[in-house]
Amino acid sequence: MNSSLASTIADYQSQINTHLDSVLANQVVNDPKLLAAMRHGLLLGGKRVRPLLVYLVGQLNNAPKDILNAAAAAVECIHAYSLIHDDLPAMDDDELRRGQPTCHIAYDEATAILAGDALQSLAFSLIAEAPASDAQKVAMLKILSQAAGYNGMCGGQALDIAATNQQVSLEQLERVHQHKTGAIIKAAVMLGAVCGKIEQANEQQALARYADALGLAFQVRDDILDIISDTDTLGKPQGSDQALNKSTYPSLLGLEGAVEKAENLGKEALQALESLPYNSELLALLADYVVHRNN
Amino acid sequence: MNSSLASTIADYQSQINTHLDSVLANQVVNDPKLLAAMRHGLLLGGKRVRPLLVYLVGQLNNAPKDILNAAAAAVECIHAYSLIHDDLPAMDDDELRRGQPTCHIAYDEATAILAGDALQSLAFSLIAEAPASDAQKVAMLKILSQAAGYNGMCGGQALDIAATNQQVSLEQLERVHQHKTGAIIKAAVMLGAVCGKIEQANEQQALARYADALGLAFQVRDDILDIISDTDTLGKPQGSDQALNKSTYPSLLGLEGAVEKAENLGKEALQALESLPYNSELLALLADYVVHRNN
Repeated sequence: MNSSLASTIADYQSQINTHLDSVLANQVVNDPKLLAAMRHGLLLGGKRVRPLLVYLVGQLNNAPKDILNAAAAAVECIHAYSLIHDDLPAMDDDELRRGQPTCHIAYDEATAILAGDALQSLAFSLIAEAPASDAQKVAMLKILSQAAGYNGMCGGQALDIAATNQQVSLEQLERVHQHKTGAIIKAAVMLGAVCGKIEQANEQQALARYADALGLAFQVRDDILDIISDTDTLGKPQGSDQALNKSTYPSLLGLEGAVEKAENLGKEALQALESLPYNSELLALLADYVVHRNN
Repeated sequence: MNSSLASTIADYQSQINTHLDSVLANQVVNDPKLLAAMRHGLLLGGKRVRPLLVYLVGQLNNAPKDILNAAAAAVECIHAYSLIHDDLPAMDDDELRRGQPTCHIAYDEATAILAGDALQSLAFSLIAEAPASDAQKVAMLKILSQAAGYNGMCGGQALDIAATNQQVSLEQLERVHQHKTGAIIKAAVMLGAVCGKIEQANEQQALARYADALGLAFQVRDDILDIISDTDTLGKPQGSDQALNKSTYPSLLGLEGAVEKAENLGKEALQALESLPYNSELLALLADYVVHRNN
């Protein structure tokens, strides 16, 4: 990874982890087990790609740190809740995530369901309390609630379940990922734009195109890594897509075709950035990293 | 039930059901099964107590119908999602709700988890899109996200699970209910106040006192009905609290003591209304109904 991006990522990872920790530390302790399960889901590592996107996009136009922290924490709460619920026995039934026991293994199923539910509410509380104007809060609320719900992530997870053990087309696979993972990645980018008051329609559209390409590239690379990497590097069981008989980019395009697809999406992301009147070098480096990352 | 209240309730039930139906009809159909499961959870009857509270409180100060519909639908989405998740095998493991199969029985567990998740997101989308000022939307967002999350309903459900098979004190039982059911009932009342621009601190405090007493009375009566009613009238298995070995008001106070407790809470609710400079007759009749209802 480029050293400038690596150092920025490390700084922002540290910043979001500190902020998330303080968010949880400020909750009144009603039920220690539920709070511990929320902490387990929220603070057990992870690349923090969505917070990073909030920060990098917000920084294009010098958004204040405090509002970025709030938006970044909100989107990470949504992401963390979705992982907790996706890992449940009734869903993907995963026992390992980021090299650690999943929430329902570390605690129990009821607590994992509630921890996910409470993290979703917390995401919206963080927006309500963000140090932002009411107009910004409402804009963020629209973006995040749409991206999280039936027309976004939840709908995508349902489409993904429906596609398991089915032969799906490339178009259907893309639709799954645009909803399941793409919607929240795009939300992170658009939240950053709200934080930075990037309000010109053409600039928002360019950022949306960047987010769409980046989100899909992220997923294509995930599918590739499920084949070429190993369990230790991934922090989750290698080969789990094949074990679940899931359609993936490599299964539809072949491994080389999938690698080419990821490269092309990376180029699309870079092209989208070109029209922006800001220094978007770090976003460009991030796109390159997403396409070539190893875990 | 008083005929004026009965006719108002019937009108508002019809109004919220029509509105909820149109909300779901306006969703783009990505995954028909998930949308059907959301509809199952949201439109399979129910007393609509929370929407009713939004309407009745909003009407005190002539809130517009459209904003009341949005707020009422939002709070009902949160309530419906919580019932879907509470019924799951890992939680209360209920197969019957309102005389119908619960969501995970009618569909499957994964779909029920996702339907609940998507209904929570939808609640916040409805607030984002409400025909209200940004200040009102942010106020509603704060109320609902706090009431739904760790410091409200989710925390209450966790406390309730922790209390199962335990001997708990009356104080602990009250804490469970204040969080598990009371928080959302209070949110409904306070959402109505936001819709009606009831902004004086003393008026908001009186409404909060009314809501606290009403919410607890509702739960005490629920516990009483679990003993004195029958499965057909309740639309859910009679005696399920005892079957789960849950502490209830009758188990701690005796049946007569619980009835007296409900009566006293009803009186507290009425007293809270007295200081309001509005015609609160219907809210008073509702408190009386909650204390004496048979299902």
